[in-house]
Amino acid sequence: MKLLTYSIDGESRVGAWWDSASIVELSVAASEFPDSMLGLIQEWGAWKDRLPELIEQGPRRSLSDVRLEAPIPVPPRDILCVGKNYADHVNEVKALGYGSIPSHPIVFSKATTTINRPEGLVDISADPTETTDYEGELAVIIGEGGRYIDERDARDHVFGYTLINDVSSRDLQGRHVQWFLGKSIDGYAPMGPVVVTEGEAGAIRDWQLQTHVNGELRQDAAISQMIFSVSEIIATVSRYVTLMPGDIIATGTPSGVGAGHEPPVYLKPGDEVVVSCEVIGELRSRFV
Amino acid sequence: MKLLTYSIDGESRVGAWWDSASIVELSVAASEFPDSMLGLIQEWGAWKDRLPELIEQGPRRSLSDVRLEAPIPVPPRDILCVGKNYADHVNEVKALGYGSIPSHPIVFSKATTTINRPEGLVDISADPTETTDYEGELAVIIGEGGRYIDERDARDHVFGYTLINDVSSRDLQGRHVQWFLGKSIDGYAPMGPVVVTEGEAGAIRDWQLQTHVNGELRQDAAISQMIFSVSEIIATVSRYVTLMPGDIIATGTPSGVGAGHEPPVYLKPGDEVVVSCEVIGELRSRFV
Repeated sequence: MKLLTYSIDGESRVGAWWDSASIVELSVAASEFPDSMLGLIQEWGAWKDRLPELIEQGPRRSLSDVRLEAPIPVPPRDILCVGKNYADHVNEVKALGYGSIPSHPIVFSKATTTINRPEGLVDISADPTETTDYEGELAVIIGEGGRYIDERDARDHVFGYTLINDVSSRDLQGRHVQWFLGKSIDGYAPMGPVVVTEGEAGAIRDWQLQTHVNGELRQDAAISQMIFSVSEIIATVSRYVTLMPGDIIATGTPSGVGAGHEPPVYLKPGDEVVVSCEVIGELRSRFV
Repeated sequence: MKLLTYSIDGESRVGAWWDSASIVELSVAASEFPDSMLGLIQEWGAWKDRLPELIEQGPRRSLSDVRLEAPIPVPPRDILCVGKNYADHVNEVKALGYGSIPSHPIVFSKATTTINRPEGLVDISADPTETTDYEGELAVIIGEGGRYIDERDARDHVFGYTLINDVSSRDLQGRHVQWFLGKSIDGYAPMGPVVVTEGEAGAIRDWQLQTHVNGELRQDAAISQMIFSVSEIIATVSRYVTLMPGDIIATGTPSGVGAGHEPPVYLKPGDEVVVSCEVIGELRSRFV
């Protein structure tokens, strides 16, 4: 199933993807349906089996009538992010002082207020260093929380998968030593367009992740190229941190970021960035 | 005013400090009083002027009848933390590769699930590297949120001050490169015992911050020794991140941490750590 958050006149609801032109209004199909993705995750056991029928029979609505929102517009805490999780990307940022393949996952966070919607605007005027860069990533949304999750059971704790653009100010990352501030400017985490639920996801290792800037292909990698798999990441983080329903984990970006170019090519007002994956769709943002 | 969160039979409420033996039950004094500190912060304008009278006239209860909780047991997002904010501390951790006085505040986060209560237990068995260390810190709680807050107006955005022990696994900090995981083990942020509200705080620069381990004085510094003041930190963070009511900012630790000893002295089961400040009180934790 492909689930999404949409709004009509500023009121947010949960829906399902029907086709490229229409969605299914789940809260119209069942009046007691949760009005947020977080609510649905928490009540997943009660809805999971009814959803196929609700999607099949529910009322459809033209996508052009609604506004797609980030799947979780206000997450319950900061977004967990993995750094340097594709070998080719590690090599391309060596010159920035971020060399060497990590022996353990590098984990940092992005503030909740970075969340941005599909087709949203990213205001880069807040970056005084003018070194804002894109990072197309696969993001995992946790369903059932837990601690000490075994790598073999990790996917039982996944609610679904979406895309994130982990927008980053390179010079702020360096200036403030830890990456948090350079990664946490308001609106610097476009997310969406849909959540592909775990039950439908299958072999995510075969998924291909791409990023286009103004139509030019910049990033193109298979999820199988990750140094630490989704399951390894969940096992590592939950060894220390109790994961909670609705936690978002961005799993790292492949090579092809602007900082990896010689000389670096940073985003400028008017640029359009599209992060895509055939199974999930296209996450498009305009930088202003 | 000194406000606190306490619980009776697992039910959490907001109270005020009366003396070292008793508290005032604010939710008994006024039935519609917010049942959480976060709620009070959000309704601060409605309660601020009534509070002195409520505290004076409200029913008191013996401190021994209740359990003190962290002032904000479940924060709305990760705790913001400033690293290397006292020059003496920067010097003592030089050997660990964290040398040099920062020219800009170093900001990272701790997961929400690190929050621990006063007199709480900190389980260090989850740190496989056995390098868990204390960091006594002054913490700021944001009242009115905002972005682009001017340094001169910053304290208008402060709800109050409390203490945090930013417990850290030194080897996990290094192993995972970014500090998040080494700082985010469940329970690694004891917080409290009370919040001294901004209106009562006065010249916080004159406050003295101390940490005792098993009764031995290990950290002892004036808040004025901070490299970046509370106002500078708020101005810097809010330049990028919209601050929200209830945001917690731990402002960095002075010299005297275990990692600064030759050889390093890390916490072991049975140790008792007390972070204190005369105005705020004592934040005591036992490590198990």
